[in-house]
Order: sequence, then structure tokens, then C-alpha cells
Amino acid sequence: MSRVPYVSFSVRPSEGRARPVASDVVRSVSDEVRAGRMPAGSRLPPVRVLERTLGMSKNTAHAAYDELVARGVIEAREREGVFVLAMAPNQASPSPAPEAPRPSFVAPPVLTVRPKADAIALSTVFIDPELLPSERLAECTRSVLKQPGLAAFYDAQGYPPLREEIAKRLGKRGINVSPDQVVITTGSQQAIDIVARATARRSVALENPVYPHARACFQSFGFQVTPLDFDPFGGLPLAAWAQAIARDRPSLLYAITSFQNPTGYSYSTHELLTILEIAREHGVGLVEDDWGSDMLSDSEYRPMLRILGGENVIYINSFTKKLLPSLRLGFLVAAEEAIPSLVAMKRLGTLGNAWLTEAVLAEFLSRGYYDAHLSALQQALDERYASCVDVLESVMPPGTRWTLPGGGPTLWLEPSPAVDAGKLRENVAARGVDLEPSASAFVGTPALRGFRVSYAFHPPERLRTALTILGEELRRLG
Amino acid sequence: MSRVPYVSFSVRPSEGRARPVASDVVRSVSDEVRAGRMPAGSRLPPVRVLERTLGMSKNTAHAAYDELVARGVIEAREREGVFVLAMAPNQASPSPAPEAPRPSFVAPPVLTVRPKADAIALSTVFIDPELLPSERLAECTRSVLKQPGLAAFYDAQGYPPLREEIAKRLGKRGINVSPDQVVITTGSQQAIDIVARATARRSVALENPVYPHARACFQSFGFQVTPLDFDPFGGLPLAAWAQAIARDRPSLLYAITSFQNPTGYSYSTHELLTILEIAREHGVGLVEDDWGSDMLSDSEYRPMLRILGGENVIYINSFTKKLLPSLRLGFLVAAEEAIPSLVAMKRLGTLGNAWLTEAVLAEFLSRGYYDAHLSALQQALDERYASCVDVLESVMPPGTRWTLPGGGPTLWLEPSPAVDAGKLRENVAARGVDLEPSASAFVGTPALRGFRVSYAFHPPERLRTALTILGEELRRLG
Repeated sequence: MSRVPYVSFSVRPSEGRARPVASDVVRSVSDEVRAGRMPAGSRLPPVRVLERTLGMSKNTAHAAYDELVARGVIEAREREGVFVLAMAPNQASPSPAPEAPRPSFVAPPVLTVRPKADAIALSTVFIDPELLPSERLAECTRSVLKQPGLAAFYDAQGYPPLREEIAKRLGKRGINVSPDQVVITTGSQQAIDIVARATARRSVALENPVYPHARACFQSFGFQVTPLDFDPFGGLPLAAWAQAIARDRPSLLYAITSFQNPTGYSYSTHELLTILEIAREHGVGLVEDDWGSDMLSDSEYRPMLRILGGENVIYINSFTKKLLPSLRLGFLVAAEEAIPSLVAMKRLGTLGNAWLTEAVLAEFLSRGYYDAHLSALQQALDERYASCVDVLESVMPPGTRWTLPGGGPTLWLEPSPAVDAGKLRENVAARGVDLEPSASAFVGTPALRGFRVSYAFHPPERLRTALTILGEELRRLG
Repeated sequence: MSRVPYVSFSVRPSEGRARPVASDVVRSVSDEVRAGRMPAGSRLPPVRVLERTLGMSKNTAHAAYDELVARGVIEAREREGVFVLAMAPNQASPSPAPEAPRPSFVAPPVLTVRPKADAIALSTVFIDPELLPSERLAECTRSVLKQPGLAAFYDAQGYPPLREEIAKRLGKRGINVSPDQVVITTGSQQAIDIVARATARRSVALENPVYPHARACFQSFGFQVTPLDFDPFGGLPLAAWAQAIARDRPSLLYAITSFQNPTGYSYSTHELLTILEIAREHGVGLVEDDWGSDMLSDSEYRPMLRILGGENVIYINSFTKKLLPSLRLGFLVAAEEAIPSLVAMKRLGTLGNAWLTEAVLAEFLSRGYYDAHLSALQQALDERYASCVDVLESVMPPGTRWTLPGGGPTLWLEPSPAVDAGKLRENVAARGVDLEPSASAFVGTPALRGFRVSYAFHPPERLRTALTILGEELRRLG
């Protein structure tokens, strides 16, 4: 391993021959050296490499090198190999290769700031891993390994049995689709990415504030963004939304209709119907990101855009938050004629995704584990939500407001206008509580200065500690 | 489950209260109905839903509905639920929701055509699954499940122990990088995708022909393509390449330097050095796709762009072909200052990838299985290559040419100019042999009319059968 690497050169068979012979090696090396393409001191490939790569016998390869030694082109050095000799006084010795130029890359958008490891991440969107079924997923993985073992190949659209399980599940919720209409993705992010890539005219209407990685993804493809401002403490200002959409006529409207990220807002049925009317009037395609409705307790689901508006609504959902973030599994559902474009866009990004986690999830769903898990999860979230609201009422100073999502993972807390948000973040950070800055969720000047409060991630006692600290610092600054 | 879904509506606490009380529910429902936002016949949420989502007692929720019944706004129907009554003669009954418009998507590029299931796919780039270590990978998966079990979270840049193993392995091959310079990707496709997204000025020089999914990915981001024509039967026409690059001054040059896809061509050391000179002269960033060098037998590797040109060369490699395609694991390596941009672009596409397969591969590498596997694989490929060349020499009619990659997975076979390529494909297809059309590998009019011959996928006897058929049909059409 300490020897210098050998130089690689091409040996082509002379006219009429199928493979090179000794004289072709002699000719190639001599030509390369004469042309200065193989400087003095270059190490040539060992005989066994010639043998194998050129498909010649050991004797032929040796004969070629012997002739090159006899001609004074190369020399053999004991235990070191075969090297090019200097042929002419002006011949170059191996010079260092030129360094490659630095490619010019765009600056990274800053969308999230990782909290300090030991801080209480009050604004996280994740769910407490204690509430997640990692043991059952491990059990499913063991079972997948037993069946026919690991599959060699993958399906670009997603593992067919997983698409079947998802279609079956959606059917029970009133969304009748075939497995051919389901595309498995790496979380909901790849679903957004695929839709953005596939969209012909690049403009999109987005809630403002919105999930920053969705906006950044659309913008990275050059989408013009129509911000749809709203206040999670009021309803959606749909007349203003209609005006903005009539003005910009975006190709798409992307909406997070249950437990909107970051505000926790859920659309009312009337709001969904009005949005369908607006979309129809202006020919706007609808993309519904439904990360939230699985977190809503009760077996009855609120109507969603996909249920009300039919199969042209692109429907996105994800298992990553509700099972294990490390699975990175989501999906999208679309009308049959849209699938070829969407799968082609998935191929451009990743060709297809890893089979193993898709098979594990298919097993998990087919065993009925998901529904059992969801109902336990929903109950835990309901309890944590109720406890969070109780704590807020007891520890928050007057002037502090919070939304009432009615369950789910997070609510939005808005400090009184007198509070300096930067100073607040600093003060609570000093006491071990991390608040995620929300500016990246807004287009333009943020209309709110608050942040998410995650009851889904923190056990009630830990949350109470964090909210008590927050309340004290709000009081101090308010 | 057969009941109609209930409508969702917002209830906001009246001024000064933290949470809604009965009168707020009465006011909200009355307002919604009066404004026509909740048509006659709409089903209201069951009491238990009000209870939980509004955080009120069962009695309060009942009281609210009782008052609404008394006011003639709603009616309770036995075992069915609570429904909105008609209030005024002109009030609408629930009308069907408008259908959402169809989004307008771009047409999918056609890059690959799937061969018929029972045909011998002569042009595939995959490796025979019999040569792949699926049992050992399953063993590593079982071991990963035993350790601390399934991890809940993922690392956006890639599982740190996997990045460490990869950095260690690269170090042994003369590429000294830290794990912080490694980004794990979904196969090499996501690595290409990330680089394309990150590139500020969108122009790229590509070999012509080239791997079609690389070209399609760059083009999907609006890259101008400078085609670098070459003939795999000759050397690279580097003077012409230098001219094309001087003319277009692309941001990037993407090159598959070992066993080029689709031709099987490997760059000589002199060609790599010349490309570095050209890149330096014109400020072109280099992207080296090294899917191939792991398939080259012998522990010594030919120098690569990344070794000669240093850390500004973006280096891409993938495990998918050499371990299991279904793993979809690849990586890129870049200079430290490029990493934040590249990881940000990965986040835009998928946020991060599934932890499980990354952990399985880390285990596989740390046990030293990969090197043992590669040396067995390389030997098998060498034998298959030698046998393929023998068969070609015995069955091909005069005028047929093929490249001599010296090992690896595929070579390029070029029929004599007299042969009608479409007719050839048809004839061999009728006899159970699939030839992949290569047109999508070319920019503009294809300079070659041949195709890949895969000795890596087919056991020698099966390959002999296919090549014999191919030889007969070539003779018939030649």
C-alpha cells in the first residue's frame, strides 16, 4: 500500500485484431512516453494487471515489458515495479497534478437552528419517542428478515405491498384509491419536492406562516410565492386569500389543513369548501399536506380537502412523526394520470428509496399495529394537550395568548407585544429552555412574534418546568 | 363508520377568557349558520369531541347543544347525531363540494424502458444478486436490532458511524477526509441531485453519451449542457473537449471516470491530468462519479480525479450496485466549506434519509465484510469478463466491435453500420433477449448505435445463450 499508484493508459488492439498483443503494449507505451503523456518516473501497471485487464497471458505481458526495457523506454526496479526512464533531456519528470478549482455553490438557507443538547426544546415538532412503537417496529424488522430475506431490488414508486396497505387504509377513511395512485416518499419532504419538480408553471400560494422547508423547497425551484396571511387566533381571511389568488393565479395552493405547522391551526369545513371554490374559479391545483389528522383522536376524521375536492387534490401524509422519525417514510396520492410525471420526478431525485424500511412498514400496517398505536398515541396527546393548557392558564402572565388546537402535537404561544422576543429567547436559554425562532416560517415581516409549544415531545412534568420558566421570564420582560 | 362526517368549525373564547365556554359554542354555531357557512343538514361534532377539543366538561358541551336546540338552530336525531336545521327559506342545503382543478404537470422524460419479465436483460447495469452479500447484510440487520434497538432520530448528513467508516475506507485509498466531509445519499442519484441544486450558475459539461439520469437531473434544474463527445473505441478527444469548455465555460464537469456508463470506458491517468489542467484554466468545478473503481480487481486503484486534483473535486460513490440495489446507499465527499450548502440541499429534497439501512451498512463496513466481499466480487467479474470476451470472439460476425474495459460490469457492443438497430432489437426480443435502446444516453444525434452488454448480471452460460442469439441476428441483418 505504500507504493506509488501506477499510471493507467489505454492499449487498443491494432486494426483487425479483437484484443491487444505484446506489440500493441510496446507501441502504446512508447507512443505515450514519446508524446510526453507519461513522464519519466511514472510507475507502470504490474504484469498481473496487464494480464487480467488486457486479457493476455503472463508470458505475453512479460515479453512486452522486456522489449520496452530493451528499447530503453522503461526500467524494472527490484520489488518496486516498472518505471518510465528519461528519454530526452527536456522530458518532464512527474509533476504534481494541478489542484481542481473550487465549485461555486449557493449559500445554504438557514431554516432550523439545532437546540443545545441538554436544553428543553420547547418548540420541537417531534413526538416523545417514549410514545412511539420502536419495539413493534423492531419485531416487524425481524419478521421481514425471516420471510424471503432481503430483497435485491426496489420499486421506484415504492414497495407494492406497502402501497396496497396504504390504499386500504385510505379507503377506510373515505379516500378510494388504487395502490397505483400511491407514491412512497422519504417523509413528506420528498413528496413536496416531487410536486414542485413536476409543476409546469412555477408559482404557489402558501399559508403565511408556513412550514419553512416547504417554502424553501418551492423557492429553490424558482416558484413565485403568493403568501396567504392568516392569524391563528382568528379564522382564515378567505376574502383576502381569494383576492391574492385572483391577482397572482398561482399554479398550486399548498395547505396544511390539520394542526398547521407552525401555528397548530385546523381548517374548518366551511374554510375547506371556500378554498375549493376559489381553486375552481382560478384553476389552482391543490396540495394538501395532512401530517396532522392522524393525531386527532376519535375514529371519525374531519373532512379534508382530498375528501371534499376529489382525486385532483394531491394528498401528502407521512409516518415519520407518528412512528419513528428515523423511518423517513411518507407518501403522496394523486390522480392516475399524474402518477407517471410524479414518479419520473422521484427518479430524478433518488431513483427510488430503500426497500428495507418500506417492507418493515408494510408488515407493521398489515398486522394492524398502526391503528392500535394511533389510538394510544391520540389518547396520550389529548392528555398532554389538556395538561399543557392547564399549566399555561396557571403560569402565564396577562397579555400572553395561545391557540387552542384541541389536541395534536403543538400550539402557538404569542407573548404580549411589550416583550422583546430576542431577549426572551436569551433569558430562557440561560435557564435551559430552547425556543425556536419562527422568522423563517414567514414571508416578509413576521406578523407574529411567538413560537410553537410542543406538548407532544415533553412529558407533562418536564413541560411544566419549561413553561414555568417561560412564564417567569415573560412576566419579567412584559 | 357509515355515518356522515361531522363538519368542523372554530370556537374561539370570548375576549378575556382563556378557553371557550358554552355561550361561545352557541355564538359560534349560530354565527356560522346565519352566515350560510354551515348549511342545513350539516352534522355537528359529537359531544365527546367538543369536550376534548375545546377542553370543556361534558355538561357544558351538552348545555351548549341544548341551548342551540332550544333556539331552533339544530336538532338532535336519535343514534345519528346533531344536525343543523333549516333557518330561512333561502338557506342552502349541503351541496356537493366543487371538484378541485387538475394540476398541470410536466411530461415525464422517458429514460429507461423496463424489459419484459422473462427476457434476458442484456444491457442491464445491475450485478447478479447471486454475487451480492444479502445473507451478511441480514446478519448485520439482526445485530443492529439487538444493539440499542431502533434509533428514533436521524442525522440529516447521514448516520455518523457510517460517515466514519466511509472516511476510514477512503483514507486507505489515499483520500484523506474527515467524517464531516461525507454526506450520505440515496444512491448516487441523490448525490447528483444535491450537487445540481447547490450549483449557483447552471451549466455543466457531460460526457456524450452519459448516464441518462444524471443528464436529466441537471437539465431538470435548467442546466445548459456542454456535450463532450467521445468514442469509447478511441481515446478521449481532449483538444475538442478543451475547445468546448473554453467556449461554454460551464460551472461543472461531471465525469464517470471508471467503467463509464454506458460505454465501460476508463480514463487514463494522462487524460485525468489533462482534464485537471482544462478545469483549472477555465475555472470549472469537477464532479467525479466513481461508481466503478470498486469493481476493479487488485488492491491498487488507478489514480482518480479526486486523488490527483484534491479536495475541491466532488467525489461520488455508491454501494447500491455492489451490495444490494435495494439499499439505495451512496455518498458524496466534498471540501469542508462546501458541506453546509450540500447538506442544506439534501434537506430540501428529503430532509434526511432512513436510519436503518445506514446503520446496517455501518455495521457491515465495521466488520470488514465489504473488503472481503469486493475481492470475491472482483474475481467473479474478472472471470465473467474474460468469458464474455471469449464468447464474443467466437459468435460475433465480422464488422461487430466491442470495447475491452478490462473487467468491471459492462462493455459496449457496436453492430456493423449495415445493421438496422431497431430491427435487431425486435428480432432478438422475439427470441427472449432484451437490448436497452441507448438514444437517451446521447445529446443530439447518437454517434453510436450499440448498447451495453452486461457480464456482471448474467451467469456465463446464460450470457453465452443471449450472445449467441445476438450474433445470429447480427449476421442475418449485417
